[in-house]
Amino acid sequence: MIYLDNAASAPVNLRALEAAMPFMTENYANPSSAHTAGREAALAVIEARERCASALGALPEEIFFTSGGTESDNLAVLSGTLKSPKRKIVTTQIEHPAVLNIISELERHGFEAVYLAPDADGIINVSSVAAALDDNTALVSVMAANNEIGTIQPIEEIAELCRERGALFHVDAVQAVGNVPLDMRTLKADYLSVSAHKIGGLKGSGLLFARKGAPLCPMILGGGQERGIRSGTENVAGIAALGAALEDVTRNISERVEKVTALRDLLITRLESIPRSRLNGSRTKRLCGSVNFSFAGTDGETLVLNLDLFGICASSASACSAGKQTVSHVLKALKVPEEYLGGSLRLSLSEHNTREEVLKAADTVRECVERLRNS
Amino acid sequence: MIYLDNAASAPVNLRALEAAMPFMTENYANPSSAHTAGREAALAVIEARERCASALGALPEEIFFTSGGTESDNLAVLSGTLKSPKRKIVTTQIEHPAVLNIISELERHGFEAVYLAPDADGIINVSSVAAALDDNTALVSVMAANNEIGTIQPIEEIAELCRERGALFHVDAVQAVGNVPLDMRTLKADYLSVSAHKIGGLKGSGLLFARKGAPLCPMILGGGQERGIRSGTENVAGIAALGAALEDVTRNISERVEKVTALRDLLITRLESIPRSRLNGSRTKRLCGSVNFSFAGTDGETLVLNLDLFGICASSASACSAGKQTVSHVLKALKVPEEYLGGSLRLSLSEHNTREEVLKAADTVRECVERLRNS
Repeated sequence: MIYLDNAASAPVNLRALEAAMPFMTENYANPSSAHTAGREAALAVIEARERCASALGALPEEIFFTSGGTESDNLAVLSGTLKSPKRKIVTTQIEHPAVLNIISELERHGFEAVYLAPDADGIINVSSVAAALDDNTALVSVMAANNEIGTIQPIEEIAELCRERGALFHVDAVQAVGNVPLDMRTLKADYLSVSAHKIGGLKGSGLLFARKGAPLCPMILGGGQERGIRSGTENVAGIAALGAALEDVTRNISERVEKVTALRDLLITRLESIPRSRLNGSRTKRLCGSVNFSFAGTDGETLVLNLDLFGICASSASACSAGKQTVSHVLKALKVPEEYLGGSLRLSLSEHNTREEVLKAADTVRECVERLRNS
Repeated sequence: MIYLDNAASAPVNLRALEAAMPFMTENYANPSSAHTAGREAALAVIEARERCASALGALPEEIFFTSGGTESDNLAVLSGTLKSPKRKIVTTQIEHPAVLNIISELERHGFEAVYLAPDADGIINVSSVAAALDDNTALVSVMAANNEIGTIQPIEEIAELCRERGALFHVDAVQAVGNVPLDMRTLKADYLSVSAHKIGGLKGSGLLFARKGAPLCPMILGGGQERGIRSGTENVAGIAALGAALEDVTRNISERVEKVTALRDLLITRLESIPRSRLNGSRTKRLCGSVNFSFAGTDGETLVLNLDLFGICASSASACSAGKQTVSHVLKALKVPEEYLGGSLRLSLSEHNTREEVLKAADTVRECVERLRNS
């Protein structure tokens, strides 16, 4: 199997699994229990919080553990809007559904939302954010890197702008963390979402960074865990795994990025030599592991299923839409020509992939595309 | 260590862990991915859904996986109210904070809530529910068994009543599942909440049963997983574990209940012989594993910490309030005399406990109570 679907879910990091295992075996206590076993579980949560904070340049009290990236995105958007007297949200057409759909819900409750278009390369122009911002803007939400095409957004500049103009700024960093340096001491964002399973942690956990003093509006109410912001018994194993995974993935980013970028560019070069192919999104401002191509005259889903027969795991766009693939809202926003809209393929690499895998995958894609075009 | 805190979190069931492990190791794929690894993950979710449905006498499409009992409770309460033209909620004073706090939030948004008092034994009288129900009642929420004192509520009769009177009925079954037979073919509830880690599954997962046709109002929006009701990449490992755990715990309930009830009654008898002790809640209508005692002249937290020194894990009330112990809202609702309000101890047994452990624990409680009273 050649796994080129790392953007959908990454292999579990062994250190993360090791950090989690004790809390799925001998220590099953509730971290709210006052006895020794409970306090040990609580300590694991404290330590994971410190690791996550340190990895992001944040304070431990700025980290809130959640059930994953989607919940973190929802929590950030609600926190940045519901308590505000302002009624406008600025976001982009290419956000993840976890951001787009909660904003749609707010629109049904009297908020106005502006959806900025990316340029043809899939980049959000800072000046378009500047033009959309006004005194009534409560929140700006722009992802650090796109999940489908991997384009990296100028979030540092957008953060500066939001700070100047008095709007809160949320960054969906689910795809970016570990691939792009993110330091909350210099990045002036108020909220930042992280998912564990995209970086080697376990599914069912994630975190929201919320800057000290930023408004917080809990979505899930109950026993008051996570300082009242996220109730429910803490997922100790998932949290411990996230701490280890985030620490690992934010260490030596530049080495890993260098290695994976070389694989990516090799893959891009090979796929470009296929006739009527199109690289979607900027060639350079993209995640080290992210390759998104369209092949005219093919259908993305069929291509994925054909690649699967050769043991290659890929996606037709994102894996986050629960199998309901229609045409990608991201490619539409990029105004990708009609003939390239249907046959898009996302290949997402990690440092575990090899040059041989990339060459094999490129050859297999070529064969499959040719076969589909001739069938 | 003698673990008598099973109501806070149960030991992880080995079959549940075995069901989960493949999805934390070799199969890390996203169940929304179309390739073989993704489809295998999706199949695990389908199978777990079928196991859960079968264990509860429900249809697979009536099972919605969540991040745990708290989220399930919140989701049920919101689903049963937000889409209704009716504006009244009937609940009890002794519900879990996951129910009480989301209802309080609804009160701030124009709903009226009635909080029924239990009798001195901690039982909610069906006639009090009948008296509170009116044409404006959207939802009734009554737990199947109380988390602090273990009293079992007459949910079958309340369900019949709600059905007759046209109100939706939610049952928080977090403590009851596996200890009380629950069959959704005969129990006429519309919603039922289950937490995985209370029954041998993993923390960070749970489910909501929602009867076919019952209103559903998603709290977490995004990629549309769980048929649009609960977005976010499915926690495949947690879900697989929940399927196995729920199957196990609902099998041979009567044998397990018989064994644990004998341990419970032995423990109650021993603790009653301590002077100025009080069993809180009905002697008979209580969960097989649940013992809650007050000892006048002691403080519950201190007692728990003293027992911990002897290797006995217990709770002062529930473990679900994130260490913020004040006087229990449940004991207050039972109108427990003042002298017994502060020194309450919850000992919760499972089939893994032995007669020797129970005898040792009872002796140790006696010693600790005496020492605390003399100090």
